[in-house]
Amino acid sequence: MATLGDRTVIRKSDTGTGRTGVWLVGARGSVATTAVAGCAALAAGLHEPLGMITETAVFEGCRLPSIGSLVFGGHDIAEVSLCKRAEELVASGVLPHTLPGAIYRELAEADAAVRPGGPAPDDRRSDEELIADFAEDICAFVREKGLARAVVVNVASTEPILDPARKRLPVSALYAAAALRAGSPYVNFTPSTGLHHPALAEAAAASGLPYAGRDGKTGQTLLRSVLAPMFRQRALLVRAWSGTNLLGGGDGAVLAHPGAAAAKNAGKARVLADTLADVPDGRVHIDNVPALGDWKTAWDHVVFDGFLGTRMIMQALWQGCDSALAAPLVLDLARLTAAAHAAGLSGPLAELAFFFKDPEPGAPGGLADQWRALLAFAEQLRGAT
Amino acid sequence: MATLGDRTVIRKSDTGTGRTGVWLVGARGSVATTAVAGCAALAAGLHEPLGMITETAVFEGCRLPSIGSLVFGGHDIAEVSLCKRAEELVASGVLPHTLPGAIYRELAEADAAVRPGGPAPDDRRSDEELIADFAEDICAFVREKGLARAVVVNVASTEPILDPARKRLPVSALYAAAALRAGSPYVNFTPSTGLHHPALAEAAAASGLPYAGRDGKTGQTLLRSVLAPMFRQRALLVRAWSGTNLLGGGDGAVLAHPGAAAAKNAGKARVLADTLADVPDGRVHIDNVPALGDWKTAWDHVVFDGFLGTRMIMQALWQGCDSALAAPLVLDLARLTAAAHAAGLSGPLAELAFFFKDPEPGAPGGLADQWRALLAFAEQLRGAT
Amino acid sequence: MATLGDRTVIRKSDTGTGRTGVWLVGARGSVATTAVAGCAALAAGLHEPLGMITETAVFEGCRLPSIGSLVFGGHDIAEVSLCKRAEELVASGVLPHTLPGAIYRELAEADAAVRPGGPAPDDRRSDEELIADFAEDICAFVREKGLARAVVVNVASTEPILDPARKRLPVSALYAAAALRAGSPYVNFTPSTGLHHPALAEAAAASGLPYAGRDGKTGQTLLRSVLAPMFRQRALLVRAWSGTNLLGGGDGAVLAHPGAAAAKNAGKARVLADTLADVPDGRVHIDNVPALGDWKTAWDHVVFDGFLGTRMIMQALWQGCDSALAAPLVLDLARLTAAAHAAGLSGPLAELAFFFKDPEPGAPGGLADQWRALLAFAEQLRGAT
Amino acid sequence: MATLGDRTVIRKSDTGTGRTGVWLVGARGSVATTAVAGCAALAAGLHEPLGMITETAVFEGCRLPSIGSLVFGGHDIAEVSLCKRAEELVASGVLPHTLPGAIYRELAEADAAVRPGGPAPDDRRSDEELIADFAEDICAFVREKGLARAVVVNVASTEPILDPARKRLPVSALYAAAALRAGSPYVNFTPSTGLHHPALAEAAAASGLPYAGRDGKTGQTLLRSVLAPMFRQRALLVRAWSGTNLLGGGDGAVLAHPGAAAAKNAGKARVLADTLADVPDGRVHIDNVPALGDWKTAWDHVVFDGFLGTRMIMQALWQGCDSALAAPLVLDLARLTAAAHAAGLSGPLAELAFFFKDPEPGAPGGLADQWRALLAFAEQLRGAT
Repeated sequence: MATLGDRTVIRKSDTGTGRTGVWLVGARGSVATTAVAGCAALAAGLHEPLGMITETAVFEGCRLPSIGSLVFGGHDIAEVSLCKRAEELVASGVLPHTLPGAIYRELAEADAAVRPGGPAPDDRRSDEELIADFAEDICAFVREKGLARAVVVNVASTEPILDPARKRLPVSALYAAAALRAGSPYVNFTPSTGLHHPALAEAAAASGLPYAGRDGKTGQTLLRSVLAPMFRQRALLVRAWSGTNLLGGGDGAVLAHPGAAAAKNAGKARVLADTLADVPDGRVHIDNVPALGDWKTAWDHVVFDGFLGTRMIMQALWQGCDSALAAPLVLDLARLTAAAHAAGLSGPLAELAFFFKDPEPGAPGGLADQWRALLAFAEQLRGAT
Repeated sequence: MATLGDRTVIRKSDTGTGRTGVWLVGARGSVATTAVAGCAALAAGLHEPLGMITETAVFEGCRLPSIGSLVFGGHDIAEVSLCKRAEELVASGVLPHTLPGAIYRELAEADAAVRPGGPAPDDRRSDEELIADFAEDICAFVREKGLARAVVVNVASTEPILDPARKRLPVSALYAAAALRAGSPYVNFTPSTGLHHPALAEAAAASGLPYAGRDGKTGQTLLRSVLAPMFRQRALLVRAWSGTNLLGGGDGAVLAHPGAAAAKNAGKARVLADTLADVPDGRVHIDNVPALGDWKTAWDHVVFDGFLGTRMIMQALWQGCDSALAAPLVLDLARLTAAAHAAGLSGPLAELAFFFKDPEPGAPGGLADQWRALLAFAEQLRGAT
Repeated sequence: MATLGDRTVIRKSDTGTGRTGVWLVGARGSVATTAVAGCAALAAGLHEPLGMITETAVFEGCRLPSIGSLVFGGHDIAEVSLCKRAEELVASGVLPHTLPGAIYRELAEADAAVRPGGPAPDDRRSDEELIADFAEDICAFVREKGLARAVVVNVASTEPILDPARKRLPVSALYAAAALRAGSPYVNFTPSTGLHHPALAEAAAASGLPYAGRDGKTGQTLLRSVLAPMFRQRALLVRAWSGTNLLGGGDGAVLAHPGAAAAKNAGKARVLADTLADVPDGRVHIDNVPALGDWKTAWDHVVFDGFLGTRMIMQALWQGCDSALAAPLVLDLARLTAAAHAAGLSGPLAELAFFFKDPEPGAPGGLADQWRALLAFAEQLRGAT
Repeated sequence: MATLGDRTVIRKSDTGTGRTGVWLVGARGSVATTAVAGCAALAAGLHEPLGMITETAVFEGCRLPSIGSLVFGGHDIAEVSLCKRAEELVASGVLPHTLPGAIYRELAEADAAVRPGGPAPDDRRSDEELIADFAEDICAFVREKGLARAVVVNVASTEPILDPARKRLPVSALYAAAALRAGSPYVNFTPSTGLHHPALAEAAAASGLPYAGRDGKTGQTLLRSVLAPMFRQRALLVRAWSGTNLLGGGDGAVLAHPGAAAAKNAGKARVLADTLADVPDGRVHIDNVPALGDWKTAWDHVVFDGFLGTRMIMQALWQGCDSALAAPLVLDLARLTAAAHAAGLSGPLAELAFFFKDPEPGAPGGLADQWRALLAFAEQLRGAT
């Protein structure tokens, strides 16, 4: 990796035409910061676009908004600026330690477009008022930046599973409703409720907007989505599939909370249920290990039976950086839903199951089938005129 | 696993009509013994057909020879009987320790049909004479057992890579030539030369017989064939892929020999070359660890780069029993090539790449694409009338 | 492993003199069955005494009761006989599948000496009555078999941690009290309360009996007891030590219960607290994975800091059979406490910390120091006349 | 880790009295650079002295030269300066990316004291001339810096095992001979020959100097030195111990060379031979994986037999940074041999076996015994007046 000077980032088109907004719910978190910084670094030509599927040949001719045309803003309840977060991510090795000043200028620009999320504990606004305020924030962003459209992407911390008897909408659903009201395509990169709330079903259907979710598939579940079909296709009987995830950062602390872990694990379990003949035994643990920072170790242990019942074992160890795995997918999803919107597509984009742990109903569960669905989607975008 | 009494194995059809021969080169080895014993156990209904793809719904209606209709014979230079080998495999946990007497009777029947392989060091026969003798052994088997046909499957120990200047054919090629001469479909489950020898190309093309190979994909390479496409599809750059295999049994001793290891590793490397954009760094070691007996531990270590060059690591540990993984595939391949022959198909069956480390040229490298090719092949068999 | 014929087990001395009783609480469990069968197999010379420390040169001249002089009995609430349990352990690969009939005869003899444990749910006996009954069972065993003494060893399932406000003694403490009353040395191989109950402290002190515990150190904790001192001695700062245990058998089901897991984990944590400068972050999970049967996989993940704060990771994977690891230690402990009793030693045997996760107070925490204490104990036994 | 400003490094004593030279053979390599930079950082109070044993309570009162009193110089054939190497190590995460300018000033000072190593291919000097020149370099260093003494530490790349018929001394032996001639204590941190050459035995014995070696024990062998005694003490029979090391950096390329690997592996094997009853099966591989840079992954796979021959498996994965593990040990050894010299000790310091893969003959093989020998050595230093 060459040490790069303080190059000027390639200018985004001065006219608003064609510029696409990416409105991040959780705009000052690790994933958002990595996405914004990385987008600037790629636009400046400082790195190969590793981890980004939309920059591969597969999406050539698909009329996706260019990397350099993306403009960032979002909601957050955190006060720590994107620049400060980037410095922390440099220190923990998530971002390269040679991040030039031009990148920091892009981060500052995105940070200036962040609006307060909510609600704070003493907030008196009703759900309806919150939705209206959030939607207005998004509309103002589009207006002021002169954007063709803005895509809303939820990258906030995982919400605990809530008591279904609760009267008020979960916060993630408020933001999703705001996206609909602002006429924005919506992507839920987390296991939180978002658009999946029954109270939003009608509005979603009537909106004419495309949307996709949920819960980005970055590590352990990605692995499971190729390993489970392998066992199935080979007629090997998976008896137990156990897993432990160790992670630090903010995510570790949030996911160690039983409610959030339950939300996360539901998605992780789905891939096995969807791709194996029988759901195997086995639990998944998520432990907070602060010393790991933004890095994660995931251990998988699979007990399976082969010919004449011979018992065998496979184990996998995944040591990855969640923010670095998630950020390019967030950019991919923003570009793809923006293009879908431009092409007049609406409703759930099951073709994007490739990206998610818990995709839209009816989507295939194995990665290979999801990949083919994605190729077909690329073909569809290419054909749209 | 229930302890089963000495049940009578379901009788194979008394008339020869429809009975299919499986002629195993290396008929007294672990894989062959496990295949013969397992076939008898399945025919007797003692076990679920785990690990056998041809017993899944995918191949329903494909007119494959039934499990109970398979009849075994073969060549071997070893004198140890199949029954004795089975006892050893029971002791090492490859075969269940409750193998009823009826299974031993089937093993004895197969053992009686084994003919001496060769050539021994002092054998004076020419290549041509050896081919003729081997072919006559196969023909006699078909004749005496009243079989519809016999499929020849090479499950002998891996041959070292030979000096290309050598005048004589490698032994595996002699058996392959004998199969052609006997009018038998041919499957090469090992990395040895077999039908791949240039001197046999013309005869293979002229034979009108179907054939498939080579080198059954049972463990580490199976894993690689799903993991490598995953990295590729996610646009993650694999920098290095290293592996170590520890195994005992006869195989460990054979493969620890550099020539044989080279033959084996060529196949293992192919999957990465076929499915990744660039061939990564990294070596593969095969060590003989007698204490592991018929069990194998394979360790894979993958270094890959994600977004902005973030370096990450994945490791996989596979602890399997090679004979138990290979035997059902041998039965699958025998049934599939027999059905292909019956359906009038000829030439290389690239559609069977799913089973092999080093499939026929032009076959897809990733398991998912190989799976789809196999489904299409099943469709073709169903349609053949 | 040679296939052995039905050899006669070497006869234990016909006179009672010198015969030592081993009274197993949980006499029909996996550990007990393996200990009884294994003792018979060793006495018959069928196997090397692997895993038994008392059969090494270290204990030469220590006047331990010979392997052939041990006589087994015990309490259990289970009805399944030791022979039946042995068959199950043969099927799951814990006991060799060539267990000769003579071993089964020894198992049957031990089984005949098993008395009903308790209390059953409808049992009306007071704690005092139960202790008296249990003690009488032990005394009768000594009397009827004409034994020099009987050592009581608790190998029953782990008891959940109980409400301290509870009036009645935990069952494990009833058996411990019975041992004291019967004049028997006592070993607690489990994390259950046993002699550690405050109500028994005075009786234990007054008994003049030697005792040892608690919680046999067979796998993950054994590893930790050598790895943790290594980090400490090298001045490497352990930041987090996480672990997951997967196991089946009865133990998996019992330990998956939060109360029992808590009891187990307290012992596991102690080794880190005793040997590292600071207790690191990290949790330990125990999952029930029935498919693993009597086998266990334990994964340890250690994050540590080296020079200038460089973050590094060590992982360990332990795949063992708990019964096979525990049984020889149970025999070791029975012999050592019997010898201690014969030598007139009394009170807590901190010198046996080598065997335990949660040894007597004041015992060293690292395995190396425990080993030296054990060597000194051997010296003491040799010197006792 | 706090971001630290450009603090002034604590001044080393202005008078020469008490200042100790550390003359590094391979002075511009990763280990040397990390040692020099780290020593400066510790002297400046920027980090806790993790990984340094001589900074723990064990060595209190041992009259070791203080960290701030060490002065560096050495030989190298490389031209890349220590500052440039430090920048590379910052980029690869070995050194913290907040290395203040004062550290670079210390590196520059050490770099100015580096003299050309040799011999270059066209060097016409005899062995004797080379030794004389190297010795004069060391003496000049002591003289010009006004040092009490200089310790010579070999941290150069591993030398291949040489043809014993070769007339000339291996280069590592030339440097060792130069150390003797210059009156300097000598430490061999590598598997190269150094003082072990028979031609130097007499001079070493006559020198009255203390020396220690060889081959610093930083990762896989460190682990083996605690795990192997554990198996032995538990009477578990190790059947096979296999290992694979993946590493990049300069070391990976050097050690992938069969000659150098053989030298390295001899040391690695010794710990098993010294601590287990029987040397187990199993090979050790060292592979060059450039993508790993200065990081190493070591995999160990141990097959062992327990009670009644039950086969079990332990695996260990070590992911460390060799330079960060080695550098503090280099500082430890320099301080300890300097103190030994000051205390009038001479000859091989077997008490330092704790640090080495292949310690002086007669030294204990297990880490715990080596630790006790080190404690006794500390006591000896404390007592020396």
